[in-house]
Amino acid sequence: MASKDKKNRLKARLPRGFADRDAADIRAIETMMAAIREVYDRYGFDPVETPFIEYTDALGKFLPDQDRPNEGVFSFQDDDEQWLSLRYDLTAPLARHVAENYQNLTKPYRTYRAGWVFRNEKPGPGRFRQFLQFDADTVGAASVAADAEMCMMAADVMEAVGIKRGNYVIRVSNRKVFDGVMEAAKIPEEKRLAVLRAIDKLDRLGVEGVRQLLGEGRKDESGDFTPGAGLSEDKSTFIIEFLMTGVSASGDRSSIDKLFQILSESEIGSEGVDELEEMTQFFSAAGYDKNQIEILPTVVRGLEYYTGPVFEAELTFQTVNEKGQKVIFGSIGGGGRYDGLVGRFGGQDVPATGFSIGVSRLAAALKNLGKLGDDGEAGPVVVTIMDRDRVADYQALATTLRDAGIRAELFLGNPKNFGKQMQYADRRDAPCVIIQGSDERDRGVVQIKDLVEGKRKAAAIANHQEWREERPGQFEVRQDEMVQAVSDLLKRQAGA
Amino acid sequence: MASKDKKNRLKARLPRGFADRDAADIRAIETMMAAIREVYDRYGFDPVETPFIEYTDALGKFLPDQDRPNEGVFSFQDDDEQWLSLRYDLTAPLARHVAENYQNLTKPYRTYRAGWVFRNEKPGPGRFRQFLQFDADTVGAASVAADAEMCMMAADVMEAVGIKRGNYVIRVSNRKVFDGVMEAAKIPEEKRLAVLRAIDKLDRLGVEGVRQLLGEGRKDESGDFTPGAGLSEDKSTFIIEFLMTGVSASGDRSSIDKLFQILSESEIGSEGVDELEEMTQFFSAAGYDKNQIEILPTVVRGLEYYTGPVFEAELTFQTVNEKGQKVIFGSIGGGGRYDGLVGRFGGQDVPATGFSIGVSRLAAALKNLGKLGDDGEAGPVVVTIMDRDRVADYQALATTLRDAGIRAELFLGNPKNFGKQMQYADRRDAPCVIIQGSDERDRGVVQIKDLVEGKRKAAAIANHQEWREERPGQFEVRQDEMVQAVSDLLKRQAGA
Repeated sequence: MASKDKKNRLKARLPRGFADRDAADIRAIETMMAAIREVYDRYGFDPVETPFIEYTDALGKFLPDQDRPNEGVFSFQDDDEQWLSLRYDLTAPLARHVAENYQNLTKPYRTYRAGWVFRNEKPGPGRFRQFLQFDADTVGAASVAADAEMCMMAADVMEAVGIKRGNYVIRVSNRKVFDGVMEAAKIPEEKRLAVLRAIDKLDRLGVEGVRQLLGEGRKDESGDFTPGAGLSEDKSTFIIEFLMTGVSASGDRSSIDKLFQILSESEIGSEGVDELEEMTQFFSAAGYDKNQIEILPTVVRGLEYYTGPVFEAELTFQTVNEKGQKVIFGSIGGGGRYDGLVGRFGGQDVPATGFSIGVSRLAAALKNLGKLGDDGEAGPVVVTIMDRDRVADYQALATTLRDAGIRAELFLGNPKNFGKQMQYADRRDAPCVIIQGSDERDRGVVQIKDLVEGKRKAAAIANHQEWREERPGQFEVRQDEMVQAVSDLLKRQAGA
Repeated sequence: MASKDKKNRLKARLPRGFADRDAADIRAIETMMAAIREVYDRYGFDPVETPFIEYTDALGKFLPDQDRPNEGVFSFQDDDEQWLSLRYDLTAPLARHVAENYQNLTKPYRTYRAGWVFRNEKPGPGRFRQFLQFDADTVGAASVAADAEMCMMAADVMEAVGIKRGNYVIRVSNRKVFDGVMEAAKIPEEKRLAVLRAIDKLDRLGVEGVRQLLGEGRKDESGDFTPGAGLSEDKSTFIIEFLMTGVSASGDRSSIDKLFQILSESEIGSEGVDELEEMTQFFSAAGYDKNQIEILPTVVRGLEYYTGPVFEAELTFQTVNEKGQKVIFGSIGGGGRYDGLVGRFGGQDVPATGFSIGVSRLAAALKNLGKLGDDGEAGPVVVTIMDRDRVADYQALATTLRDAGIRAELFLGNPKNFGKQMQYADRRDAPCVIIQGSDERDRGVVQIKDLVEGKRKAAAIANHQEWREERPGQFEVRQDEMVQAVSDLLKRQAGA
C-alpha cells in the first residue's frame, strides 16, 4: 500500500497522451460506429478481431517517421525473453491472422474490426497515444475491383454517419504512379520512401516544406531538424511540378490525362494509370460521381507497405483550428493495397486491400457539423429518501419502476439534507423524483415531482412563499398508480 | 523487412495466452453485452471508460497470489523512466479516475464499463492473458443499500442474458465477518490476507487443500509448492469448522444465525453480521428471494482491497469439465465494497462498491446452456462473374442490391472457375447468387439461384443430367425486377 506520508503521496493522474471517456462521448461514438458497422455488414464484411499484444517482429516496422527499432511502439519482454508490442495499427495484426489461418479462411476474406491502437510518441493537442480505428479489409482479391469497393464503401460510410455529399471526397491515387514518377526522375530505390513521406506532408507543410524535405531537410517551429531525402535541385523540381499539376487538376480528367502522359514511358507508371482508369469505370458504373470519389495524383499515404491503389477520405468543409484560423478539416482516414504484408510470413504472396477510419477524428468532424448524436439516454427517475429507517421500502419503489422498464434509481448519498437530494436529481437530468414521507406512506400515496414542468412553472413564480405553497410540477398519486403516472409523465416530456 | 531466407523466416503466430475472435464469437458476445448494458442503464448507471495504460503505482498491487512487484502485470517504462502498466482489472483505474476528477463528479457516481484487462501469468486451457470484464460501480455511497443494489442488479443481469432462476445464485458475505472470525481465532494481522486467500480456494481445492494452505503449505499436481499461512493446528481447525458450518447452512437463516453467534463477542464481526441482516431486508422488500440472492458466510473473494460486503455470482447447474467429470459451473463474477481504494490517492476517504462480470466465462456458460445467440447475421447475396470484361457491371448489380438495404457482395476472387464461385457462395452461407452471362445481358435479365431451395430440390434429383436440365432453385427475372425478386426470396427463406 502507498505511504500515507504527504511527501510520498500517490498522485491520481494519467500518463501523458491518455484520456478517460465520459458517458456522452461513449454513447455518441457507439452510435456513430453502429452506423459504420451497418455499412460494412451490408457490403458482406464480417467482424474479426485480434488481441492487443503481438510479437514485435510480427508487427514489422511500418510506422511513418519511426524507422528506429521500438520507436513509436510500446514494447516489453515476455518471460521467455521474446519481445512483445502493443499493436500500432489493425493492419499488421490482420496480416498475421491471415497468414496463421490461411488454409481455413474462405477467400476473398472480407472483414472489419474496430479497435484501440497505441503509439509511443510525443502527445500533443488532439494527439493521443491510444486511439480508436475502424478498419475494413479484403484479403485474397487481386483485382482493383476490391480497391474500388473500398472507396465506394468509404463514401457510403461518410453519408451513413451524416456527412452530406459535397462535404467529403474520397481521393484516389496509386503507388505505381509514384513509382513511375520516381523512374522518370531517376530517383534511386533507397531514397524513394523518404520522397513518398515528404510528398505525404504536402497538406500539412505546403510546397516549401515538401521542397525542403526532398532536399537537405527541414527545421520545424520548435527547432527540431528532420533530415531530407537529399535530392538534387532538378529532381526536387520535377517532383514538385508533378505535384502542382496534380493539385491544380483536382479531379479534372483531361488535366490528369495530360499529367499521366509523363508516365507513358514507364511500365510501372502506366500500370498505375491503367488501374486508376479501371477504378474510374467501376465508380461510374456503380453511380458514384467525382464529387464523391475523385482521382488525385498527389495522394500518397505515408505507410511503407502500400503497393497499389491508395485512398484518402477527406472532409472538405471549413473549420477553425486551435490558432483561430479557418482551415479545411482534412483527412479522417485512408488506406490502400498492401500485397506484400501477408507474404512477409513466408507463405505465398497474398493480395490485400483495406481502409481505416480514425474514429476520434471522424467524431470531432461530426461534432463540428453538429451531427454527433447527443447522449441519447434520458436521466433516471430518482427515488428520494425522507425517512431513513425505511430505505428498504424506497429501494422497493425503485425496483417497481425498473420492473416496468423505467430507468430509476434510489438516492444513495447521505439523505440528511433533502435539498441535496433534489440537487442530485437535477444534476442527473432526472425527469422526476419520487417522494414519500411518513404521512404519504400512511395514506398509501407517493408525491411525484416533475422536474421539467417544475422548472417551467417556477420561472413564473414571484416569491419563495408562493413557491412553497404551489410546489410547481408536484402531484400526488396512489402508490399502486405510481408506475402509470410516471409512464404518462415520461410520455408527456418526450412529446413536449 | 524480414529476411526471405527460410531459416530466419518470420513465423505467423500469437504469443501464448492470446486469441483471435471470429464473427460468431464477436456477434454473440455483443448481443450478450447489450443485454447486460440494458440492465445497468435501467438502474441509472452510465458508461465511463479509462484507458488501457496507467502509471504502475496508480494500479497498486492487489492481484491475488501476485505480491511481488510487476508480477502478474505487463509493465514498461515511459520515456521519462516512469513505470507504466496495462490495467489488470477495471476497479483500480476507476479509483484513479474518481480521485482525479472528484470535485466534478455527481455523487453517488453510478457507472459501468466493459473492457479488456491483461494478466501477465501462465496461460492454461480457457485461461487467457487478455480477457473482457464488464463492471458496474457505485462510488460515494456508504450505505449497504448500494451493495444490496449491486446484488439485485447482478441477479437481474443473470436473467436478462437468459439464465433461469434456479440456475444461478448471488452469494453474499462480508469481510467484516471474516475479520470477526480472525479476531475470535486470534490470528495476527499479517497472516490474515494469506488466510483469506486460502479460504477463497475452498471451491477449487476442497477442505484438505484449504487446510494445507492455512498450515504449512500445499504442493499442487505439477509439483509447484505454495507456502501456507503457517497457522497452528487448532487455529486452522477453528477456521475450517466455521467454513464447514457455513457451507452446510447454505442459505438457511437459522443455521447462519447460529454460526454468527460465534461473532457476537467481536465488534467488527457483529458489524458485519448487522450489515448482512440489513441487506437481507433490502432483498426481501424488493422481492428477491433466497433462490436468487443468499447469505453464505464462506464467500470471501481473493482481492485484498475489499472492506465490507462481498458477493459472488455463481452458476449452479452442472457441466462437464475437460476431464469429463460432472461439475458445478461455478463463479462467473463477483465484487464487493472497497472503501479504501480511492483514498489511497491521498484525498478524503471515499466509500465505493462494485460488481464485475467475467464476460468470456459467462459466454461459456450460456453456450453450455444453449443460450448464447448465434451469429445473427445472414450471409450476403453473391453476385458472380461470368464475363471478365464486365466486372464494373457486376459491381453495379451488387450496389443496386445494397442500395435497397440487401446484404450483397461481388465475387472478388479469380473468376475463371465458375464452380469455385458457387463454392464460395456456399461457404459464405449466401441465400442466393446472381448470374448474368452475355446471353442474359442481351435479353436484359438475370438468373437468381436460390441456394437453400436449390439444396432441398437437389437432394431429390437422381442424376447429373437431370440436375443440369432442372437447375434446381434457379429462375430468371428482368434486371429491373432483381431487387424485388431477391427481397421476396429472402422473405420466403426467413419464413421457412
